[in-house]
Amino acid sequence: MSFHGVRVVDLTRVISGPFCSALLADLGADVIKVEPLGQGDPVRAQGVMVGEMSSYFANYNRNKRSIALDLYAPEGKEILADLLVGADVLVENFRPDVLGKMGFPAERLKQINPALIHCNINGFGANGPYAERPAFDLIVQAMSGFMSCNGTADEPPMRSGVPIADLVCGLYAALGVAAALHGRAPQSGGASVQVSMLASLMSMLSFHATNYLNSGEVAPRTGNDHAIVCPYGLFATADGEIAIAPSNDAIYAKLVKALDLEERLAAPAFATNASRIARRGEVNAIIEARTKTASSAHWIDVLNRAGVPCGPVYGVGQAFDDPQVRSQKIAAQTEFAGRPIGVLASPILLDGLKSAPRLPPPGLGEHTETVLREIGCDDGRLAELRAKGVI
Amino acid sequence: MSFHGVRVVDLTRVISGPFCSALLADLGADVIKVEPLGQGDPVRAQGVMVGEMSSYFANYNRNKRSIALDLYAPEGKEILADLLVGADVLVENFRPDVLGKMGFPAERLKQINPALIHCNINGFGANGPYAERPAFDLIVQAMSGFMSCNGTADEPPMRSGVPIADLVCGLYAALGVAAALHGRAPQSGGASVQVSMLASLMSMLSFHATNYLNSGEVAPRTGNDHAIVCPYGLFATADGEIAIAPSNDAIYAKLVKALDLEERLAAPAFATNASRIARRGEVNAIIEARTKTASSAHWIDVLNRAGVPCGPVYGVGQAFDDPQVRSQKIAAQTEFAGRPIGVLASPILLDGLKSAPRLPPPGLGEHTETVLREIGCDDGRLAELRAKGVI
Repeated sequence: MSFHGVRVVDLTRVISGPFCSALLADLGADVIKVEPLGQGDPVRAQGVMVGEMSSYFANYNRNKRSIALDLYAPEGKEILADLLVGADVLVENFRPDVLGKMGFPAERLKQINPALIHCNINGFGANGPYAERPAFDLIVQAMSGFMSCNGTADEPPMRSGVPIADLVCGLYAALGVAAALHGRAPQSGGASVQVSMLASLMSMLSFHATNYLNSGEVAPRTGNDHAIVCPYGLFATADGEIAIAPSNDAIYAKLVKALDLEERLAAPAFATNASRIARRGEVNAIIEARTKTASSAHWIDVLNRAGVPCGPVYGVGQAFDDPQVRSQKIAAQTEFAGRPIGVLASPILLDGLKSAPRLPPPGLGEHTETVLREIGCDDGRLAELRAKGVI
Repeated sequence: MSFHGVRVVDLTRVISGPFCSALLADLGADVIKVEPLGQGDPVRAQGVMVGEMSSYFANYNRNKRSIALDLYAPEGKEILADLLVGADVLVENFRPDVLGKMGFPAERLKQINPALIHCNINGFGANGPYAERPAFDLIVQAMSGFMSCNGTADEPPMRSGVPIADLVCGLYAALGVAAALHGRAPQSGGASVQVSMLASLMSMLSFHATNYLNSGEVAPRTGNDHAIVCPYGLFATADGEIAIAPSNDAIYAKLVKALDLEERLAAPAFATNASRIARRGEVNAIIEARTKTASSAHWIDVLNRAGVPCGPVYGVGQAFDDPQVRSQKIAAQTEFAGRPIGVLASPILLDGLKSAPRLPPPGLGEHTETVLREIGCDDGRLAELRAKGVI
């Protein structure tokens, strides 16, 4: 496993941070999740429960070990320092100054472990006028301009129903950590990796961003149509709807042929993408009149065989039931207290192998004793920490 | 720079693959983009042009060098083999069997360079019933269930207007390559990394996926409201609308206090998130009646100071003009033929530094001669290849 032997001390909670460390854990890292005593990560109480375990928590925390610790107590801080001595990476998603206030400013981290890679995941950046603002996925979706790219021109901007700002930020943070691990010569110093949810989601604005930055203009929202490609979008069939996306004129020609619409749509009036965009309503209506004459399954088969990108519009359940999705083992299974829990597999195949969950999601503090023994705590010390309410 | 010294041979085109190699290039890798003679990567002709250069292409290909090559000619294949000898990574987003048909099946790659990391980015997986289908962002958004999570219950599923399937897949692929680079001992064999757009986007389904996999149930689309949190969403103000997202009861209490609505919303009837979801219409109406009495700027200031996540709903242009976005240098600049081109900076800060564009986007084949000289072609050979139309 690629990150086998890499030890990550993980102070993150909720989604962006735990997703980052889950990606590293899936790739083999030993991730020690440090949680507050009592409730632990708030996601433990969210989503569908399987017995005592949240499936939402399980998805982002499988393959990790958990220790529960009072980080406000001096002894809790000592334990954190001891953990950091043997760690390669520290990941946290506190607001910018919190770690310093807890007694771990950058200089202290450097003293404790000069080779440590410190990854901070934040909302809006570690400096600037909004650095101290509380962040949340929706706010970043709204402020980044991402929502403004979704939906139709006559409706308000539309968020994605998945926490996309959290997740994309977690992915960037994991890549940043991986890059820092690669760049770090064994004898050299550590590194700092900082990623904000705002910059991460804005980096997804793609042509919307480059068009604006280089023309000053922003195109109106186009719903399920593509701003600069026609035809493109969802089309009704006899029993539902399908997505069709011919990406260039050659594939448009294949589409028209496969739909047996050459007489109407191979005319010079529709020869270029620009001419089709100008008559989008007409083009779409002609195509849809044809797609409505047969089933979705029929057209998906016919168009794909003709080389035209086409597929069904699935709900979440339908997606997991699809034969291709099943063949790719996109759903995986872990377990807790003897009960199976469905989670998402890592989409990264290394040497043909998916990194399946190798450890179940941890109960809160399940590994406190094991991990503390690994950093030298004996029975007496463990009893003392327990008596003081630090662990 | 973290991937300084890593050489990537990049056969990708369009978005998912070029984004993967751009992420590696931003982090220091020497990426050699191999393009077909004539038109090159189709994205060269898309989006807003700055002189002869597409700003869309510039964004995903800055920091790379380009060589233009006829990979169907035997001499073109020889050059590719020579390039691979000195490479660390090969990235391609062909359909599964294309590289083999070109004369580079896995066994041949292993012969050419046993330490090579081969990254394949595909649409639906390298095997399974749809492996040969042409992929496109919209189709993956539709088939993955992602679209079904976006929009309101009474409207059809809504795609994201950004090519999110391409981009998330590119991010996973870059992480996979980084992990393989870390795991690869210098003397050991290479590695294979495979990532599909379908598995990548499904991995973003988060609680929608885990709820379905563990209960068999899928909640209806909730538009800009959160399925399991209330209040949450967009609220009209005197001069626009704002996003508000209190993530737990403690922050709900802060919201109610900051809005001076304690008399109406601190009642026991609204004490729990569940009770508020049951009366969402009423809760939202009371809040919106209040937010409409002052400007967006007023409430954004008041609520953030109270610790309630709140922000504006920006268009793309407004997002780039925001003072925080400016402070974070999220927009960056490169140039081509003396003209500045606005692009997106990498959101990853390493040791406090953003990886700014260090090389402009390449003209098609701009580095053919330089790179071929690096792998040992002399004047005679270059003239011969030119005469044969291979370069």
